[in-house]
Amino acid sequence: MTKHKIFLAGEWRQADSEAWFSPYNPTTGQPIEDSYPVSSWQDCEVALKAASEAFEQLKTLGENKRALFLDAYANNIEANKDALAEIAHQETGLAVVPRLSEVELSRTTMQLREAANAIRQSSWRNIVIDFANNIRSWLEPIGPVVVFGPNNFPFAFGSISGGDFAAAIAAGNPVIAKAHPSHPGTTRLFTELAQQAAVSVGLPLASIQLVYAMSPENGLKLVSDQRTAATAFTGSKKAGLALKKAAEDAGNLIYLEMSSLNPVILLKGALSESSESIADEFTASCTMAAGQLCTKPGLVFVPNSELGDIFIAQIKSRFESAPVATLLSPDSATNIAKTSREQIRLGARRLTDLSSEEGERFCNNNLLLSVEGEQFLQNVEMFQAEMFGNAALVVRYREVTQLVTIINKMEGNLTGCIYSHSQNIDESDYQLLEPLLRQKVGRILNDKMPTGVAVSPAMNHGGPFPSTGHPGFTAVGLPASIQRFAGLKCYDNVRQSRLPDLLKDTPKQEGIWRHIDGQYQQTEDSTK
Amino acid sequence: MTKHKIFLAGEWRQADSEAWFSPYNPTTGQPIEDSYPVSSWQDCEVALKAASEAFEQLKTLGENKRALFLDAYANNIEANKDALAEIAHQETGLAVVPRLSEVELSRTTMQLREAANAIRQSSWRNIVIDFANNIRSWLEPIGPVVVFGPNNFPFAFGSISGGDFAAAIAAGNPVIAKAHPSHPGTTRLFTELAQQAAVSVGLPLASIQLVYAMSPENGLKLVSDQRTAATAFTGSKKAGLALKKAAEDAGNLIYLEMSSLNPVILLKGALSESSESIADEFTASCTMAAGQLCTKPGLVFVPNSELGDIFIAQIKSRFESAPVATLLSPDSATNIAKTSREQIRLGARRLTDLSSEEGERFCNNNLLLSVEGEQFLQNVEMFQAEMFGNAALVVRYREVTQLVTIINKMEGNLTGCIYSHSQNIDESDYQLLEPLLRQKVGRILNDKMPTGVAVSPAMNHGGPFPSTGHPGFTAVGLPASIQRFAGLKCYDNVRQSRLPDLLKDTPKQEGIWRHIDGQYQQTEDSTK
Repeated sequence: MTKHKIFLAGEWRQADSEAWFSPYNPTTGQPIEDSYPVSSWQDCEVALKAASEAFEQLKTLGENKRALFLDAYANNIEANKDALAEIAHQETGLAVVPRLSEVELSRTTMQLREAANAIRQSSWRNIVIDFANNIRSWLEPIGPVVVFGPNNFPFAFGSISGGDFAAAIAAGNPVIAKAHPSHPGTTRLFTELAQQAAVSVGLPLASIQLVYAMSPENGLKLVSDQRTAATAFTGSKKAGLALKKAAEDAGNLIYLEMSSLNPVILLKGALSESSESIADEFTASCTMAAGQLCTKPGLVFVPNSELGDIFIAQIKSRFESAPVATLLSPDSATNIAKTSREQIRLGARRLTDLSSEEGERFCNNNLLLSVEGEQFLQNVEMFQAEMFGNAALVVRYREVTQLVTIINKMEGNLTGCIYSHSQNIDESDYQLLEPLLRQKVGRILNDKMPTGVAVSPAMNHGGPFPSTGHPGFTAVGLPASIQRFAGLKCYDNVRQSRLPDLLKDTPKQEGIWRHIDGQYQQTEDSTK
Repeated sequence: MTKHKIFLAGEWRQADSEAWFSPYNPTTGQPIEDSYPVSSWQDCEVALKAASEAFEQLKTLGENKRALFLDAYANNIEANKDALAEIAHQETGLAVVPRLSEVELSRTTMQLREAANAIRQSSWRNIVIDFANNIRSWLEPIGPVVVFGPNNFPFAFGSISGGDFAAAIAAGNPVIAKAHPSHPGTTRLFTELAQQAAVSVGLPLASIQLVYAMSPENGLKLVSDQRTAATAFTGSKKAGLALKKAAEDAGNLIYLEMSSLNPVILLKGALSESSESIADEFTASCTMAAGQLCTKPGLVFVPNSELGDIFIAQIKSRFESAPVATLLSPDSATNIAKTSREQIRLGARRLTDLSSEEGERFCNNNLLLSVEGEQFLQNVEMFQAEMFGNAALVVRYREVTQLVTIINKMEGNLTGCIYSHSQNIDESDYQLLEPLLRQKVGRILNDKMPTGVAVSPAMNHGGPFPSTGHPGFTAVGLPASIQRFAGLKCYDNVRQSRLPDLLKDTPKQEGIWRHIDGQYQQTEDSTK
């Protein structure tokens, strides 16, 4: 069994380990023959020291180094996509094609390249100049960022390859990546590719560091350390809230993406018009990747009517016949079973069959539960418990006024969808519900399922607490995601020669948007 | 003695009081013959309910109502400036002319009017459109905002008249104002003027509510209530940190401006060139308004040299001869005395005379202490304790390398100044120190004292913890200060007819900046 090293202070080194662990192969249910260390505080200490030094070095390097690094890294990832998909498949059970080697890989390289562009365009800087007062401001890096990646996107949200990583580096901060323990080998391979890219362009190697695991206590200590400037966490609400408390009590920033039910509201006109296709979309969105997506629609509101009953029958049969994808861990099945049992105890009906045995693979039959609107309102907390996987709860609503009551009692979510008739039929219901739903979500959709989060500057992959920790920020979409890891810096009466180029009266760099005396302007080529 | 009412749910009503208090007249040291209630939780409950209802009403009103309100309010303030200055002078001891009726009043009305302009220009909305993906996002209001105003700016940072108030209203949020108990009468008069403005334009009256005081426990309960969307607090670190913990543990937003020493570094060339004028500027900045300013320079670094000794003698004599302004409360003098005693115990020398007796007026002689760089480094925490008032600590540094060590141990501050020679003499020292200082402050200044915070879109009145709670936001300067009280909302595949006007392909409103497919564009007049 190979005992793996961690990447600290610019080199692969033996961890100061408190324990060792091996990931599982979800497809076989067997442990993988590789052993990874649980780091002690000593490793974190080394990482913090090296990251602080790398931060100082990054400040004196030209911005372009980071852009070159991100591009080189994206190229390395593409050149090694088969190896990445292979090891990620072993560790996560996610399909090699199209999921890993096509969809997720290209999303990942696109994010890295867009982050490189954001550096070159200074689009995240938010440059504001007040000539009359000789005051200028923009955003600057803040220091070492700790990234805790989730289990469900080993590439695109990976701790050393995903959106948080790209955003933190783009702003000029070193990253201490904490791998998700379900896919340490994938993260190791990414780190090797990042290391090669860093070497090739001359980025300080301690700008990127990797530990695989640490005790919960050391995790709390790491995010609250005074050398840590910010933390990005994607994962469970329980772990997220513990980290949030530790970081914020110490005055440190933390950005969290925790849990979301992503409610889908089906208005009666939509069902009268396209019940079958909505059933298709809903089933695909819920069962794809075994529903292990932050924006999986876990809650669907269906009218208590004949049309609603038909739709429920349609999704029931689809859930039963849809492929049962592999879960990332045995815990996923356990958690779904536990939450669904509790919901059934409180009156939910089970619409699909019980779990079948399928050998040792981690899986759980696609699960559909149903509850009446009245019952939901009697136990709003338990019926809003997230089942992270291929499971959903149907809520049968009596009238739209009942939906009003329900939405007002809902927690913050990443997304909310309303399906309505293509003509005017549902418009008054939509107009009643939309303002309420919008208040509870970060992204509102029409006639479309929430999964498949586009990498777009207009995207909001964020939302009100407890879906995330701050309603003003997004984890996907540049340049906004970069701005989470930046501090506002103002230059008041600072001499021209001492200003950063882009804050000068006449910068050298051309084509950069600046907000000057109330208007946006692009810099011109000053050498012309 | 008049027992005053609170302004709750649209009307002046008897508080459900737990106790009563009277403010002091700092100029006479005597209590003012007016009595104000300490509200019970029942009052907070009424305020939260009314604010939540007002929020729903604000969402359906046109944006322009809020702009009209802010403009009308600014007009009312101007029409009543003598009365405002008179009552504020009684309660704070600040001079009527020029401070209250000219400087602070015009700053206040300017802020309100600029907030109205920000509404009309949608400059805070951060509109981003991705046509190809049909995804659009902008910022929207989040709900009731609680504003705790400070004691030192009864107008411009007042809980129902200042920058936080203007920003929260501009974003479309109702405000629950918690008056500072040192100037409740001033706050009452502002509330009456705001009420008149709200009535005149038809703004829901519960958009603006006022309570005077509450127990610390009820304060914590208020900021952590689920109906409170955000809190803005300006005041002491101790109170700020308690509120921060309560709000964040509940998942609520809080923006804090707490404490700052605002270090001023004097390089040797600057002293050789303009010691006298720097001494003038420093003394004015420290003693104006009895130094009760968030950006008062409380720490000045002077070379341990003959030039430095001359400068110290210059400020010593100026501190002794400068007028001793009135302090806002007897606590100010007590806190300064306590902190200075502690610093003297740790080796600081007292450069100016002990407090003289001046009748009953709240005041304290302008206080200057001095400490060697080595001593500072031995007790960095105590020598960074804020003395909120007309007091400053001189730190004599041996070499610039010692300043490097000191800056690296400094806490986060709002501002940091470097004075240097007008020619190249100090340039290498500047280049060594500036990157370190910049990391510790929100605003860096050259050859200029930090007081007199310009109301500018490029201003940053913010900084790293513990000067504020979030390094990315400013309390002064629009539109950035508004964006603190907003949530990012994304519209994904939402039908054209259902989009807010400014997110439509062709909005009706013209001249509004939008970020479309990577470029800033202004909307055109679609009726042309």
